[in-house]
Amino acid sequence: MEITTQDIAAIVKKVISEVETSNTTAKSNEIPVGISNRHIHLNKDDLETLFGKGYELTPIKELSQPGQYACKETLTLVGPSMRSIENVRVLGPLRKASQVEISVTDSFVLKVKPPVRESGKTEGSAPVTIIGPKGIVVLKEGCIIANRHIHMSPADAAHFGVKDGDYIDVDAFSGTKRTRWFDVQIRVNDAFRLEMHVDTDDANAVGFKNGSTVTVAK
Amino acid sequence: MEITTQDIAAIVKKVISEVETSNTTAKSNEIPVGISNRHIHLNKDDLETLFGKGYELTPIKELSQPGQYACKETLTLVGPSMRSIENVRVLGPLRKASQVEISVTDSFVLKVKPPVRESGKTEGSAPVTIIGPKGIVVLKEGCIIANRHIHMSPADAAHFGVKDGDYIDVDAFSGTKRTRWFDVQIRVNDAFRLEMHVDTDDANAVGFKNGSTVTVAK
Repeated sequence: MEITTQDIAAIVKKVISEVETSNTTAKSNEIPVGISNRHIHLNKDDLETLFGKGYELTPIKELSQPGQYACKETLTLVGPSMRSIENVRVLGPLRKASQVEISVTDSFVLKVKPPVRESGKTEGSAPVTIIGPKGIVVLKEGCIIANRHIHMSPADAAHFGVKDGDYIDVDAFSGTKRTRWFDVQIRVNDAFRLEMHVDTDDANAVGFKNGSTVTVAK
Repeated sequence: MEITTQDIAAIVKKVISEVETSNTTAKSNEIPVGISNRHIHLNKDDLETLFGKGYELTPIKELSQPGQYACKETLTLVGPSMRSIENVRVLGPLRKASQVEISVTDSFVLKVKPPVRESGKTEGSAPVTIIGPKGIVVLKEGCIIANRHIHMSPADAAHFGVKDGDYIDVDAFSGTKRTRWFDVQIRVNDAFRLEMHVDTDDANAVGFKNGSTVTVAK
């Protein structure tokens, strides 16, 4: 087999095209889904109340979003029902304000009424009590149902034609019950990896597993 | 105030119009939603295994669909996880085949993998074990996730322009997270009252309560 200059040019062109494409995570209309189980973010004060003065979190697993990690530490939630939910995972790093993210299903166990919120927007959200091995934190606010949202890089935002703070609709067709999710918040950051986050209620309703995908609705 | 013949004619016309409209349940594009918690339908053999020879169910509450009722009796479900779900309500009347309807959330507790199915279509569905006060029933099949469906009368079917066995899409916009449910099965029967049935996963995902409504998607 003879390799001509034209062959070489074609091969080089193909390789360059592939390298260029790989700079963008998103190569299609598909967005991978991560399912968020109930979890807790803590601030330094609450960490020390729950685990003791000078305590530090023990990371055990990197999460899909760079810099975020699951910790060895778990806590117990209680609400006015006087029933508890045990083994609720703490996620790191520490934040300015403690935040408890649960599902509506969980909210019936605890008898709390958390609003659907963007992470970090805890003002006026629901109260909940956190039980730790060394102390108890009675949060006056901070319990939320996380809104549906998609993390993406600026390159992915360009690919999808959206910007930070936009809301889009997506089709959840890769599970067992076809569903369209409206009002999905776009969050763009250099550190973000393309991923839609939903809670366990949304995931279970449509029969999604980690690795399921959604597509942008037409 | 003087009442003229014209006034009387107008009033009579208005009353007649209201009476005529009330013959059809559906007056708009809205469909009320009923949320189905996990429940069990039994056949006579399984009833007697679980509660004893000659036992009869004790109805305590009429359900929205005429002839269907919740019973005093509850049972315990177990699966390969060796964990149980207690106090699962039995619904009457008895059926030809026993059927256990749970949510995906429940399926993780039991470690069973029920398919999404129309009620009654239990062939090849998941196994599950039912614990009663007098005996145990090991169902080889019968555990399902109920499909999304809408009960309606022939008059309502005419109103919506659908027939028994059709599938339609509906918008769940009256909760906390706007969602479109596709592939919702239409079930038409003279005895049916207009109502969409969803399981607790679907209801919790969108923040629905009993009395929430959906509309037919355009």
